[in-house]
Amino acid sequence: MSKTNRGNFFEDFSVGQVIRHATPRTVTTGDVSLYSALYGTRFAVQSADSFSQAVGYPRAPIDDLLVFHVVFGKTVPDISLNAVANLGYAGGRFLAPVYPGDTLTAVSEVIGLRENSNGQSGVVYVRSVGFNQDGVEVLDYVRWVMVRKADPSRPAPEAVVPKLPAALAPDALGNAVPLLDIEGWRDDLSGSTARFADYQVGERIDHVDGMTVEEAEHMIATRLYQNTAKVHFNQFTEGQGRFGRRLIYGGHVISIARALSFNGLANAFHVAAINGGRHVAPLFAGLTVHAWSEVLDAQPLPGREDVGALRLRTIATKDRATADFPAKVATDTGEDYDPSVILDLDYWVLIPR
Amino acid sequence: MSKTNRGNFFEDFSVGQVIRHATPRTVTTGDVSLYSALYGTRFAVQSADSFSQAVGYPRAPIDDLLVFHVVFGKTVPDISLNAVANLGYAGGRFLAPVYPGDTLTAVSEVIGLRENSNGQSGVVYVRSVGFNQDGVEVLDYVRWVMVRKADPSRPAPEAVVPKLPAALAPDALGNAVPLLDIEGWRDDLSGSTARFADYQVGERIDHVDGMTVEEAEHMIATRLYQNTAKVHFNQFTEGQGRFGRRLIYGGHVISIARALSFNGLANAFHVAAINGGRHVAPLFAGLTVHAWSEVLDAQPLPGREDVGALRLRTIATKDRATADFPAKVATDTGEDYDPSVILDLDYWVLIPR
Amino acid sequence: MSKTNRGNFFEDFSVGQVIRHATPRTVTTGDVSLYSALYGTRFAVQSADSFSQAVGYPRAPIDDLLVFHVVFGKTVPDISLNAVANLGYAGGRFLAPVYPGDTLTAVSEVIGLRENSNGQSGVVYVRSVGFNQDGVEVLDYVRWVMVRKADPSRPAPEAVVPKLPAALAPDALGNAVPLLDIEGWRDDLSGSTARFADYQVGERIDHVDGMTVEEAEHMIATRLYQNTAKVHFNQFTEGQGRFGRRLIYGGHVISIARALSFNGLANAFHVAAINGGRHVAPLFAGLTVHAWSEVLDAQPLPGREDVGALRLRTIATKDRATADFPAKVATDTGEDYDPSVILDLDYWVLIPR
Repeated sequence: MSKTNRGNFFEDFSVGQVIRHATPRTVTTGDVSLYSALYGTRFAVQSADSFSQAVGYPRAPIDDLLVFHVVFGKTVPDISLNAVANLGYAGGRFLAPVYPGDTLTAVSEVIGLRENSNGQSGVVYVRSVGFNQDGVEVLDYVRWVMVRKADPSRPAPEAVVPKLPAALAPDALGNAVPLLDIEGWRDDLSGSTARFADYQVGERIDHVDGMTVEEAEHMIATRLYQNTAKVHFNQFTEGQGRFGRRLIYGGHVISIARALSFNGLANAFHVAAINGGRHVAPLFAGLTVHAWSEVLDAQPLPGREDVGALRLRTIATKDRATADFPAKVATDTGEDYDPSVILDLDYWVLIPR
Repeated sequence: MSKTNRGNFFEDFSVGQVIRHATPRTVTTGDVSLYSALYGTRFAVQSADSFSQAVGYPRAPIDDLLVFHVVFGKTVPDISLNAVANLGYAGGRFLAPVYPGDTLTAVSEVIGLRENSNGQSGVVYVRSVGFNQDGVEVLDYVRWVMVRKADPSRPAPEAVVPKLPAALAPDALGNAVPLLDIEGWRDDLSGSTARFADYQVGERIDHVDGMTVEEAEHMIATRLYQNTAKVHFNQFTEGQGRFGRRLIYGGHVISIARALSFNGLANAFHVAAINGGRHVAPLFAGLTVHAWSEVLDAQPLPGREDVGALRLRTIATKDRATADFPAKVATDTGEDYDPSVILDLDYWVLIPR
Repeated sequence: MSKTNRGNFFEDFSVGQVIRHATPRTVTTGDVSLYSALYGTRFAVQSADSFSQAVGYPRAPIDDLLVFHVVFGKTVPDISLNAVANLGYAGGRFLAPVYPGDTLTAVSEVIGLRENSNGQSGVVYVRSVGFNQDGVEVLDYVRWVMVRKADPSRPAPEAVVPKLPAALAPDALGNAVPLLDIEGWRDDLSGSTARFADYQVGERIDHVDGMTVEEAEHMIATRLYQNTAKVHFNQFTEGQGRFGRRLIYGGHVISIARALSFNGLANAFHVAAINGGRHVAPLFAGLTVHAWSEVLDAQPLPGREDVGALRLRTIATKDRATADFPAKVATDTGEDYDPSVILDLDYWVLIPR
């Protein structure tokens, strides 16, 4: 009986397999403080009990991305310890609010497998669900990762590739936000007068500010999420590896970009869904992250007069300001991302009407 | 409608203008832990519920400087985003205790304006007030900053320079400390037997210890306070700037000096007022802070037998021990600060009698 | 009256002397979050209220080593500020659970003194006890440190060397774990199916993962514990000293090794005792810690069917993987530790049967 977790390899997965992940984690105001200190986030609903209560929450909810990172972190030891690459996300929905004191657990189901033609690795598709202590689903999302085979001679399984939505429809978004009393929403306290109707599809917003990342910061963050992926923590090994240094957890970049987006989207208080995301290039300590966003869609929500939904594309860069909205550039062979781009994220946010 | 905050420029301010700042912030035991971890503060009242309850608090109050930093942080996006320099503080008073769970907001009033003769910038004087969720004032202070003009051709406003006190009188201090039962104060637990009567005016105390600052630490601290001043966070920009590196938030230095001052002032548990302060020189990561203090005044407080007030001058240095009390040195043109000095702070503390 | 603490020198101690240490410290969920973020610990009992409640705790208890570090930190200003070396631990027992909201204090008794033959220093043995706010003992342990004499001409005291146990007997372990309802223990949530009976005496487990340490991290940790030992914080002084850099608190290494040991010992949720420990060599920032463990003993506990005790030896290294279990190596003069070894710790853990 091996007592240490070597992680699952491609051939260890089968379609329909359900994995209940360790370790349950009670999320507290201590986590809220650390999340604030790591990213400097300023969205009023998550920052202040008084503000959130004025609009109808029982108290300030936990930041959506903190919930995402904690749930994601649980899946790592079972899903992606032997991952070559984290390829994508789809259909991520925040289903119920999470408050300090709630305990999160996670379960994943393997919904697809496709071995690569080289026989060395394959793509594993999992749908992961986060639960609170009462068994209520708080988050679900699909991700797919390229995972090494332990034994390349093992035969390939039948390929199963799930059909994934390019984006969630507005009526498919979760119920993580109670019906709000928008009379209680004070724009002077939230930091902006721009609400749902003030954003136009196609509008681009540079978030202006930049944030430099230190090794201590991304490791503190990633451990807070109990994410055990080796590449983030071990300079002794990574120093001899592909990049010569530790890789920063992609979720850390998402949270930085989200915090920067306050400058331009201060009232967009809730991440309702992650339609898709690509970590275009790695980020390393010492580099500075900037971000800009485009409004891809703006939709009312069925049965709700309080908030509307904006579909955003947020692009983050390293060591490059984003006033000119860098994204893709023409190349000899077509087009590719500007070399500064590290993240291309497609998601829905809610904002008062 | 611009959705991003470019900050206010000198010509955007007018005397009498009132600005309610975003974002309200609930302060929690999570913040207390982080504050402790960032500075290693050891004052018993703020460290332990049991100690504070033994002297009459309902529970351990939030550290005064943590309250100051949170309130100060709120003012930055509106007051000092385009500041060239943070010139000074005056009349800072801690007016009511703040406990974990309280939510802080801030309002500033412009009380003075004076354009510089070069027409490029001007000095803005603001009185900022911090409130808790019940609308109780917990802190007020005046600061003045030099702010750039966006358009130097704009005419100068009439100069208004407020009359500011060099120091608060003892009977003008706030009521952030309830009447204490000093019978319950145990010197073995607080760390010193030296009380009010043991300090003499003119006495100098070297605080002995030094603390080196890392980039991750000052950024974690400054984000915890939701202070958005760009110079602290963006190495990509600052690397091309005046100093070639990120500037450390001046309040971080104040908190380090205060924590170091425990060694010599362990019973001086409460900062009651900030009479004035000057960030003499910038601090950068990798440098080590030392501090020493002089007792400028010692006064009983009207109607109180429990505590007395010491007016202190605390000087902090970078990469220089302070056993010989460095402050000002003679120069060709008069005198100036020793090149190691980074902070010269004048404040009142309360200490049991 | 000197107001600053110069620390005690060897001649300041006398056998039988009792020292009540400052500063009491309320431990909160904020500390739990920081501890999690600093080490990435994943033991389910300490991580989740729901898990701990399912087995009979009122809520998730504070990590044992966090309790140890906080109590240890209190003793530093009185015991080891002038220490040349921290020589050893013995007989450390966790006596009662500590929960968020509890306040810890510490008292030490000098139980031995032995001047070194050079007359420059001596060994001080202290038994330190940590208490909660109700006066309940939560931890006791013996440590001995080499402390400088202030005046080498002072005569040596009569040598008193306490008899210390090489290891605690299983029936001498403390009661920090309530009787558990192991029916409620879910291995899928705890992260391993390996329980008491699955470990054999003599078994060696490589914990696989490595963790690189940054300056900001170990200073944040050590300040969290209000440990004031100068060597950890002052690069200005240490840069001119023996190693040219800051020394990392030995307890930080213990906590890293404990967190790494989850991979192989996931159900060993409680550190019941520290039999002995040696910080074989210093650790510095930038180096990576790995660890492996050997099962030295496995014993049932009198009157308990819920958990058994494993006596472990955990060895941590710097910049060296531990798949081949490095420990001691043959030298010209006998044997000595492999140069990579930094910690050799002997302790008891509890694990469900």
